[in-house]
Amino acid sequence: MLGIGGEEYEQRQIAMRRLAARAGFQGVVAWSRGGSTQDHYADVYYLTGFYQHQPFVPDAPGRWRAQGHAAVVLPVDGPALLLTDVRAVQEPRPAAPVRTAPDLVDALAEQIRASIPVGTVGLIGCEAMAASWWRRLRSTLPGHDLVDADHLARQVRRIKSPAELSLLRASGALGQRAMAAAQDAATPGTTEAEVAAAAIAEIVRAGGAYYGMGISSGAESHTFAASGPAPYSADRRLSAGDLLRIDLYGSVHGYLFDLARTWIVGTEPTTEQRRLLDAVRDSVHAGIEMLRPGRPIGEVARRCQKVFERSEFVAHHGLPGSEMGGAWGHGLGLSFEPPWVTEDGPDASERLEAGMCLALERRIAMPSVGDANYEDDVIITDSGPELITSDPR
Amino acid sequence: MLGIGGEEYEQRQIAMRRLAARAGFQGVVAWSRGGSTQDHYADVYYLTGFYQHQPFVPDAPGRWRAQGHAAVVLPVDGPALLLTDVRAVQEPRPAAPVRTAPDLVDALAEQIRASIPVGTVGLIGCEAMAASWWRRLRSTLPGHDLVDADHLARQVRRIKSPAELSLLRASGALGQRAMAAAQDAATPGTTEAEVAAAAIAEIVRAGGAYYGMGISSGAESHTFAASGPAPYSADRRLSAGDLLRIDLYGSVHGYLFDLARTWIVGTEPTTEQRRLLDAVRDSVHAGIEMLRPGRPIGEVARRCQKVFERSEFVAHHGLPGSEMGGAWGHGLGLSFEPPWVTEDGPDASERLEAGMCLALERRIAMPSVGDANYEDDVIITDSGPELITSDPR
Repeated sequence: MLGIGGEEYEQRQIAMRRLAARAGFQGVVAWSRGGSTQDHYADVYYLTGFYQHQPFVPDAPGRWRAQGHAAVVLPVDGPALLLTDVRAVQEPRPAAPVRTAPDLVDALAEQIRASIPVGTVGLIGCEAMAASWWRRLRSTLPGHDLVDADHLARQVRRIKSPAELSLLRASGALGQRAMAAAQDAATPGTTEAEVAAAAIAEIVRAGGAYYGMGISSGAESHTFAASGPAPYSADRRLSAGDLLRIDLYGSVHGYLFDLARTWIVGTEPTTEQRRLLDAVRDSVHAGIEMLRPGRPIGEVARRCQKVFERSEFVAHHGLPGSEMGGAWGHGLGLSFEPPWVTEDGPDASERLEAGMCLALERRIAMPSVGDANYEDDVIITDSGPELITSDPR
Repeated sequence: MLGIGGEEYEQRQIAMRRLAARAGFQGVVAWSRGGSTQDHYADVYYLTGFYQHQPFVPDAPGRWRAQGHAAVVLPVDGPALLLTDVRAVQEPRPAAPVRTAPDLVDALAEQIRASIPVGTVGLIGCEAMAASWWRRLRSTLPGHDLVDADHLARQVRRIKSPAELSLLRASGALGQRAMAAAQDAATPGTTEAEVAAAAIAEIVRAGGAYYGMGISSGAESHTFAASGPAPYSADRRLSAGDLLRIDLYGSVHGYLFDLARTWIVGTEPTTEQRRLLDAVRDSVHAGIEMLRPGRPIGEVARRCQKVFERSEFVAHHGLPGSEMGGAWGHGLGLSFEPPWVTEDGPDASERLEAGMCLALERRIAMPSVGDANYEDDVIITDSGPELITSDPR
């Protein structure tokens, strides 16, 4: 049975308390978004298995505040409490008692006062905490010093447990099926939106969550996506020979897949197109082979870069600009997360360990040629890389 | 041709400048989320037609900050500028020149310094501005006073233009088709996830954006949704007689539909179930009839409440708790927005005007009976309510 058991949540809370105590904190607060967004649920979900779907609505002070969010209050010496604005919660129950409050910010301040001694409190999920809510917390909690502590969450979530790895494998497999559905749908005459619908329906039918996609084709293939809330176009019909690029992400029980493919619609690639596709795929694959415990991350990035620089594509076009600040990938779990796979910078000297999960990727965007994206997800095992988004075709 | 024309964006910027000048501001900054989230794109999108799909990744100071967001800088006496972290933007072009920067926060500070004279700057989209970014802006902009100004955006977006009303009509019709697809799919033996996939695929195929849904059924029908990042369950199979409830929201060109239906799977409702379904539908419909220019919003809420209190359901079960702080609905446009349709409170005395769009809704959650949701979207016209999510069945 896939999923995280109650005991594992307990262990997570214990690990977080230990890190918080070591940092000199009296407790931590995890703050996360829900409301159908998929980019900031990790911290509350990791500690409790809870995600709040009721959508965000603008604050109406006196009636509600921070709707669509949730918080966990975790004193170093006391039980966790989950705060949310919904009354009725489905099975399986969250791994903490639930308190419901329409004003989540004031309820959080109250709960901190009630359960965490005056002192320093670490806040994880900082980038989901709006400035106005933070100011309100500060003014209603004069005795508590609220400090950014996202590094604690990164540390505790860095190595995945066996249950987490099983979910990442299931997620990678679902992502792969969704991408295959998109590839099957992408015949000449169909629209980008129809291709997207095939992929998304595959994810949803299986009970996964669709997070998002970058999709582009033909004359717009050098861009990431359309400029509206929907990334795909219902007007742009695919023609044979169009370059079609999809970067697709979603999750199973919150654990992400993140994979990208680029192909030519309805025909074989031209020499020019083949060089582009080969360059991104081969350089990512070269990096995957390097993913072994003990290896510094910078070496992986350097290997990818070297293979890329030696590609036919670069020989003909020179080095294109990078779309990700030079990163060749990133950590993967309940979010897109560090470490960043870069040749230098703070993460380059970090050594790989068994139980890490990485997405390796490359995207080239050249207005004259088009855009290519290639990305796979890999678990680091004691015996080397385990590709979890392998393409059977 | 559906869509907002370039001239309309220009008029929006002019209207926003006028309000900002009247408020004594030197300019405004609109700050919005993108990255596949659907709850905070309105402010940048309203002014420029731009949404940024590249997803959020945690800040890596020195390399990037606030990825997956976008900003518009609008001096009261100068041209607008759009800031984003993506290089290549699709047609149609945004209604402002684009500057690309990986560190969106520092680029925003720089742009404010360069184009807005020292003084007060109104910030719209406050609830998408993380505390850490706001602190950084404050420390790098000692001469500028950044104040919350979301009320300006509400004011300028309150009455919809003819082009906006056309998009809301198209959106309501798409929402209705998606709900019909869910109803067709919901036969005994199917899962909640399969029902959700039918609705979502209908939205995506048409080029709309799926925002989110609340869905629940059978023994869990008194809840809003499952507690993971996916709101539906792939394990829960529908049985004949199950109560199934869907609250579905998405958009066409960013303009939202928001509708809810509850029905009984594969059979006729029992007397108990019928009372529940009648109570929410009839009270919402009674409110819709009241939606005419000049009428105070509080009167609409009181009418809904009166019809609800007189329902057979209330006669048998008493008054259930409200799930929305007593609100019978809300404004609808590029977001869920004020006015709140409440019997009292600040919005109750506001008078309806032609060109407003409202979603009227009721959700009852009673653990013993189940949950029912009913919601329709309505445009206020000079001659009365125009239901844009009418159910042909």
